[in-house]
Amino acid sequence: MNSVKDLEGATLGTQVELNTFLDWVPFNDQGLVPAIAQDHATGTVLMLAWMNREAIEQTLTTGQIVYFSRSRQALWRKGETSGNTQGLVSLRFDCDADAILLSVDQLGPACHTDRTHCFYLEVRGDSVVVDSEPVS
Amino acid sequence: MNSVKDLEGATLGTQVELNTFLDWVPFNDQGLVPAIAQDHATGTVLMLAWMNREAIEQTLTTGQIVYFSRSRQALWRKGETSGNTQGLVSLRFDCDADAILLSVDQLGPACHTDRTHCFYLEVRGDSVVVDSEPVS
Repeated sequence: MNSVKDLEGATLGTQVELNTFLDWVPFNDQGLVPAIAQDHATGTVLMLAWMNREAIEQTLTTGQIVYFSRSRQALWRKGETSGNTQGLVSLRFDCDADAILLSVDQLGPACHTDRTHCFYLEVRGDSVVVDSEPVS
Repeated sequence: MNSVKDLEGATLGTQVELNTFLDWVPFNDQGLVPAIAQDHATGTVLMLAWMNREAIEQTLTTGQIVYFSRSRQALWRKGETSGNTQGLVSLRFDCDADAILLSVDQLGPACHTDRTHCFYLEVRGDSVVVDSEPVS
């Protein structure tokens, strides 16, 4: 197999070596792919952030979610300062290997605004409405 | 209010006019933001794709999910050829307005590989494993 395309028709249980697979990931021009964090217990989509190859590898090695902060241009060990860590339950790639879905064990609020999740701005008619408040 | 930052501490029910809010969205250099589609009924994260302002507006107007295809560089009315449409249940922005969460009513498989969702490549140990097969 030479690319993720070769896995499209693959049967259940087909395996590829992780390092080989990571060579196939089409990181963008900043070396990043988007990663969705979903709460393992509730199914709530908590946030979307970005990972580079090192963030993926450190996440898998440590069992704690590590992103790449685009504003700080550095690895971001989620919860390192806030304590609101995300334990890794599973890490999945999509069909094109250009997006990641993380199932996580979230400690405390996921959002820097102290809301449980980041997607609190809902479109309703011609308005965008704040649909939850900080928990603390 | 002059930016999405002004909504961080906002109380429940605070509203902003949609057109004003869309002016705040930090579209990337291709004019796009990532959009996560989550199945309304099951909570399954189905896929991640991209939207430009027009895709967002058409989605809200038509009630059917419209993405922007980066490979075709054109609006992509999801399911237009396959029939596997996504009805809009809700559209939410995150705290930075640089990601969208769509709750959708998915018809048929969401993935172009005929799997129910796109995230079928799971890391297990030193391997990536195909964890589901096409449904048809």
